[in-house]
This record gives sequence, structure tokens and C-alpha cells, in this order.
Amino acid sequence: MKQFTSLADVADPKALVDKVLQLKASGNSNRNIGSDLTLALLFFNPSLRTRLSSQKAAQLLGMESLVLDVNQGWPLEFEVGAVMNDNKSEHVREAAAVVSQYCDILGIRCFPGLKDRDEDYAEPLLSAFQEYGNKPIINLESATRHPLQGLTDVVTIREHRKSVKPKIVLTWAPHPKALPQSVANSFASWVLAMDYELVITHPEGYELDPNVTRGAHIEYDPNKAYKDADVVYAKNWSSYRDYGKIMSNDGRFMVNAEKMALSNNAFFMHCLPVRRNVVVADDVIDSQQSLVIQQANNRTFAAATVMKEIIELSIYE
Amino acid sequence: MKQFTSLADVADPKALVDKVLQLKASGNSNRNIGSDLTLALLFFNPSLRTRLSSQKAAQLLGMESLVLDVNQGWPLEFEVGAVMNDNKSEHVREAAAVVSQYCDILGIRCFPGLKDRDEDYAEPLLSAFQEYGNKPIINLESATRHPLQGLTDVVTIREHRKSVKPKIVLTWAPHPKALPQSVANSFASWVLAMDYELVITHPEGYELDPNVTRGAHIEYDPNKAYKDADVVYAKNWSSYRDYGKIMSNDGRFMVNAEKMALSNNAFFMHCLPVRRNVVVADDVIDSQQSLVIQQANNRTFAAATVMKEIIELSIYE
Amino acid sequence: MKQFTSLADVADPKALVDKVLQLKASGNSNRNIGSDLTLALLFFNPSLRTRLSSQKAAQLLGMESLVLDVNQGWPLEFEVGAVMNDNKSEHVREAAAVVSQYCDILGIRCFPGLKDRDEDYAEPLLSAFQEYGNKPIINLESATRHPLQGLTDVVTIREHRKSVKPKIVLTWAPHPKALPQSVANSFASWVLAMDYELVITHPEGYELDPNVTRGAHIEYDPNKAYKDADVVYAKNWSSYRDYGKIMSNDGRFMVNAEKMALSNNAFFMHCLPVRRNVVVADDVIDSQQSLVIQQANNRTFAAATVMKEIIELSIYE
Repeated sequence: MKQFTSLADVADPKALVDKVLQLKASGNSNRNIGSDLTLALLFFNPSLRTRLSSQKAAQLLGMESLVLDVNQGWPLEFEVGAVMNDNKSEHVREAAAVVSQYCDILGIRCFPGLKDRDEDYAEPLLSAFQEYGNKPIINLESATRHPLQGLTDVVTIREHRKSVKPKIVLTWAPHPKALPQSVANSFASWVLAMDYELVITHPEGYELDPNVTRGAHIEYDPNKAYKDADVVYAKNWSSYRDYGKIMSNDGRFMVNAEKMALSNNAFFMHCLPVRRNVVVADDVIDSQQSLVIQQANNRTFAAATVMKEIIELSIYE
Repeated sequence: MKQFTSLADVADPKALVDKVLQLKASGNSNRNIGSDLTLALLFFNPSLRTRLSSQKAAQLLGMESLVLDVNQGWPLEFEVGAVMNDNKSEHVREAAAVVSQYCDILGIRCFPGLKDRDEDYAEPLLSAFQEYGNKPIINLESATRHPLQGLTDVVTIREHRKSVKPKIVLTWAPHPKALPQSVANSFASWVLAMDYELVITHPEGYELDPNVTRGAHIEYDPNKAYKDADVVYAKNWSSYRDYGKIMSNDGRFMVNAEKMALSNNAFFMHCLPVRRNVVVADDVIDSQQSLVIQQANNRTFAAATVMKEIIELSIYE
Repeated sequence: MKQFTSLADVADPKALVDKVLQLKASGNSNRNIGSDLTLALLFFNPSLRTRLSSQKAAQLLGMESLVLDVNQGWPLEFEVGAVMNDNKSEHVREAAAVVSQYCDILGIRCFPGLKDRDEDYAEPLLSAFQEYGNKPIINLESATRHPLQGLTDVVTIREHRKSVKPKIVLTWAPHPKALPQSVANSFASWVLAMDYELVITHPEGYELDPNVTRGAHIEYDPNKAYKDADVVYAKNWSSYRDYGKIMSNDGRFMVNAEKMALSNNAFFMHCLPVRRNVVVADDVIDSQQSLVIQQANNRTFAAATVMKEIIELSIYE
């Protein structure tokens, strides 16, 4: 693997899921893989799970890590040809080239502006680090994708599925803030890459990018969607069509015990952080069928496997 | 030791003091104890000594550490059953369960609100991480206790005492801000657990929790308290009775050379940070009898010993 | 080397440059030098390159590092005898003594106030840590000096020079903010210590401290300065005479292709971060002659060499 910025970087997604499970089962046997190598983690936005699980993953491989909260420094300029006489102190060209020299693998988190869809979907920050840096990049959630979460989620489904082709429901849920589409996009992509059945339910107007959801069934009625579901995955996203807008707070889409009862005793999943009793009722997230804590745990093993693949196939190829 | 959240977690406090001194004397001989283990440090409030000495302690044992400044992320919800549609993005239930998965020992610092005594003394954050997490917890100063400081302080006294039952004076001192009672509570508890003589001096109305100070003598006149003292330990705290209020700025309680002259050539101690010429006069803190820098140094060895005990008696029991 | 706070701490600057190049060529062969040692990095101001390259340098030597963003904590008092009843929670005396106990080498970054020249040039923070701490100090850019940058810059020149006595031009450049003189001071000092020819060009009134620039030629006309230059090093600084003031935004001093054409096919250098099309035109910084990324890379090896020297000549002497 040359980099891990989206599902498209992965030649065989199903095989990668197997590798995550193997690494998870292998305990402390990988401590030499990353010896003398350095992981740099750049956060343009806050992080809890991603930050800790990525550092923990580096430790599992014996790698050092460097963590930088970029916004405690100065704002970066992205525009080519800009006359930088305002508040931007450094161009991303230099930042990317410089940071990549201090590490062997570079992890980057940067959320979208949610104002200009074309700009966000062009992934300007990630692209700039790919163009101007020269080290393998791991996407720690970018403007429109969160592939480490997607990989983690299908690994968790794989651990718990009761059939080879489970029915997965991705349900939009209400939220007081406008959120990116990144988790929903990556979850859909990875579930479809596993050849699972995917039903996406949301209020009309909340359709995701059709290029992402091709192969999924869209169902506006959550009660119909939940029928026979093996997994219910909840996530809010702001509108893709009326980009970045909150079009609905429809409480019918909160995951609750009543709707879960329509399912095939489905597992409940969410990437966290989650707003209780807005996105999901307490009695669902606290139930035996809730996998949210297991998902978060698998972040470590997904990240470590991705780093191991990059080390073995790119750095030491 | 299963955890280290208060003196009550320690079966034999005197033996623990011995172990700290042994570890301090043992140099770099403990570097394998924490191999392949991870310490996570969560700071809900700023820290200098605790942060650096805890990381240094982990290094002494060969442990990795992960440090997270929680308030650079999002605020946590603590209320059970809350409908989280306001500014809290994550419930402590998930945060605690998730973070405990990324580490083997979890250190937490969180100060009190100083508004509701019952709430603060119920230690809501510490309790939540005990309830929802599943890893041994080290208290890095919670709402009402600072047991690592208490342990450090009796270790420092032990190193310098001239008799087996020294007279220890804990003196309240003025301060422009309302501070927690945590350091005073833990100092009193640990000194009493050593069977030392403890006199607490403060303006009337500044009585600490009587459950904590049982066995100590309260003396409102600092001049009388200092008589024959072997150690004078200064610390401000806000009122326990009129909870969180500043009731006095009585300058008679600042530690100065005149009062120290009444003592038995007492050592001066403070947990730091300290406000010079408000809590203590320059000529006392800068004197040969001042132990404040040695106290701070012992933080490393107290923390390392606590981690070692948890590793040996809990993780690898 | 006992410490590295300025060029004056270095007995043989030319030999140190050789050692940096040797360490750079030696790959991972130094991983045992810093075993069981700890580097603490204190940042009173933001940092990207210095922070990451210093941590990376510690890793190259097998040292642990502790990083503290001081201003996320509380402000320090520097005044001797201060009555600390305002917003300063800790005196630098305690902070310096305490932190030095947790590490073997202490790196410090602190920018100047740019209000009182005498105060800034007395280096109050660096001096306080030297006086009250007891560990070797590495200056990560102080009020008036940036010796790690100066060392890095002459190392980079040494790698690329085409003659033993190249002509180096240090050119002031416009900038919207008032900046310290530290980089310019250290660059001039290190270039002169290499016995290179140094021409400094800037608008009248921007003269640096004459004690620093003794041996350099001052030329107010940039076109004359660039003639036959082998290296053009750009940097803004605020006025030394009218201390901390911006006296000019003279665009004639921006580095551009037209002026570079007057030189001896000169290399372009800057310490970064740099404001494009204000300090330097895109077509110069993006040209083959630009060394800015290589300079940033050499920061790691300069820092590692300084740490190695301190370890071998001071800690284990």
C-alpha cells in the first residue's frame, strides 16, 4: 500500500479486513516492524479516538510518534500564487514538504468548511500534502472521507456477523450541528466493498453523493429500512444537495428500542462521539447489542494494520 | 494495588513510602517493568509538575505514555439520561470506556467546580471513569483529593525528619483565587496515616471536612501552631463550610521568617505552584530549610512506585 | 559543550559543522547515545519545525522527550521580590528548578516582547532557566538569538557552497508583522564564524546590533548587494534602533527573479515560515536554487549533534 487516503488506495479491501483481525489476534508480536521509524500526526481539528488509537497503533509496531496540533500554531495558506500579506504565515507547500522530512508516515486530520461542496470534495488539504510532501499519508478523516473508520466498521461487522451477507442499515439521525458527510461516505463505500446488503435511510433531501451510494438502496421510511436489519449504523450528516445545511431534525430517525425491535435483533453501531437521546436512545446504546465500544477499540488495530502494510509494501518494499 | 484514587486504596501507606524511597535509590533498574504497557494521561485542567513527572515516571518503568488535553476537544456530558442537544458532544460513559481500551493504566486530572460541595465531594468525574472504564486509575488530582501529592509529601518528610514522630503544621495561607481543598485534604490524610503529629492552623471558618482532619489539632493562632514545629506546610484552600468562598485574606497566615523562628528550625514545604510573598515570603522559600524543589522531584518517584505497584499487583497479578 | 544558548557556547563552530554532517551521514547508528535520558522541550511560543525536528533529533539518539506548551498553563512571574497577588501563578525560579529535575537536557523557546530592547537583549527567560535550573539548556529561539537555526544554515551552505569563501547576502525583506531580530542575529554570527564574506542589505534605519554585524558589509542598495552573491538569505526583522517598530515595507527588498539574476546563480535560503510574494516571489522559492526545504531538514541533524555533544561532553564527561 502506497498510502491510505481512501478506499481506492486499497487493492483488496476484504484481504485488508483479514489482516486487521490477524494483527488484533497477534498481541505484542509486531513490536519490531516500525523500529527506527516515525509517525507524524497533524491535527487541524480536535480528536480523541483517532489521536489515541493512532499513537497506540504506532506503539504496537514499535514506531515513535510526533503529534502536532496545527491550529495552536499559525494558519496555512492554500492558494497558489497568493500574496501572503494577511494572517496566513506559511504556505501549505512548505509545511507539507517540511513535515514529511521529519517522519516516515504522515497522518492528517482536517475537516471540511461545509460551505463550498466542490472545494471540499476536491480535498484541498489532503491533496496539498500528497503533492508537496513525499511520505505515505494516512487519512485521519478528511473533508469528505474517513477511511480508517470505514475499515474499522467493516472489521467490527465481520467479527459479529451471523451470515456472509448481512443486511446493513445506515441511518441518518438528527443532530444540532451541521456535520460532514465523511463518516457516512466511507461507511457506505466499505460496506459495499464487502458485498454486504446496504440500505440507507434518511429524510428526503439528505441523499449522499450518488457516486458513493451506487449499489445501496435508499429508503425514506426508517421503519421499512430497519426490517430484517442485522446492523443499524447511525450517523448524522448535513445535506449534500443543499450543501452543509441542516434540512431536518426529524426525531423519527433517532435510533430507539421501538425501531430496533423491527430488526433481526440488529447490532447498533456508531463511530462516536455520539449525542445520547438525540442520535440514539440510552436503552439502545446501553444494550448488549451495542458495539460502539468495540468499534472504538478496533480503531487501534485498523490503524496498526494500515501502518504495517505501508511499512512492508512501501517503505521497505 | 488495584488503583490509586485515594489513600483508602493503599493497604499499607507506610510500606508504600518505603517502596518510593527504594525505587528512588534504584536508578535505571526498573526499565523493563512497564515494557509493552501504555499509560494514558487525561488532563481536564492544566498541569506542569504532574504532567511531566508522570511521563517521566512512565519512562523510568519503560512504559509508553499518551497525553490528552481533554478541553482542547469537546465538553463531556455527565448527567445520566441527558438529552444531548446542547454543547456537550460526548457522554463520559463512552469517553471512559473508549480511553481505557487504549491504555493499561489511566491517569486523570480534574478540578472541582467549587459551587456544589456535595457534587464535588461525590467525585463525579473520577467515579464515572471508575464505573465506565475498565483499567486501573491513578488520581492526578481530583475534585477533593490529590493522593500522589500526599504520598510525595510524606516521602519528603520521611527523608528529612529528625525524629520518628515529627510535629507537622499545615497552615492555610492567603490567595487571590478560590482554590480546592484537595491538597490540604490529602496532606492531612497521609500525615495522619504516618502517625505524625498534625496541627492545622487557619482562620476561623476555614475548617476542612472533619472526616479528613479527625486526629489533627486545630489551632486558630498561627504563632501557637508554629511552636516546636518540625515541618511547616503551607497551602491555600477556599472555605469548606461556605463552600468555595474566600472568607479571609488574613496576612498573618503568610509564612515568613518571623513565624518560622518560633518553630524547631522547621522545614518549609509547599506543593507548588506557589505565589511568593502572598503564601510565603521570599526569605523562607529561598532558605536552606525550604524543601519545595525536593518535593517536586519526589513526584516522579511517587508516581513511578504507584505505577509499579499497579503493574505488579494488578496487571500482572 | 556545557550548553547551547548562543554561538559563544561553541568552542569550535567549524568543527561543529563537520560533526553535523557526519551525524547526518551516519543514519541510525546513534540510537544508544541517549538511552535512559530525557529531553524536555518548553514552548512559550508556537513552533512547527523546531518542535518536530527537536523531537525527531531526540529519537535519533534514543532519548525520550517531554513537550510542554507553557502558555496552556499559567503565566510565570519573572520579577525578583514580586508580591504575586495578581495573575501570575508561579515564579520562574520554581518552574526552572522543577522542570530541570525531570530531564537531562532542557530546550526552551521564548520570543521577545519587542517593547524594551535592553530587557529583551538581557534574555530574561533564558537567563532565569540558566540561573535557577541545573541542566544543560538548548536555545530553541530566544528573545534575540536562534543559534540552532544559525548552525543549520551554515551546515546547509557548507553542503552546497562552490568555494571555500562564498559571498553570502543577508537581505531584510518586508513583512506585515513586527518580527524579532533573532534569526538575523544568529545567521550573521554563524556566517562570520565560518569566515565567509557577509553583506547585509536593508533599508536605512534597519541596522542590526553593531556588535553582531562587526565584520559584515552593510549595503543599502539591494541590487549592489546581490552582485556576485553565492547565497541570498532573506529574513524580515523589526527595527533595532527604533526598537520593535516597522519602519519600512519597501518592496524593493522582496527577493525576486530579477534581483537573483544579478547574483552568481545564488542559492535562495530562508528559515521558514515564509510569506510568499511578500518576502520572496514564487519563482525564486520554487526554483532549483531554493534550499528552504533542505534547511528545514538539516534542523534535525543540527539539533541531534548539539544534543550528542552535550551528552558526551557534559552529561557523561
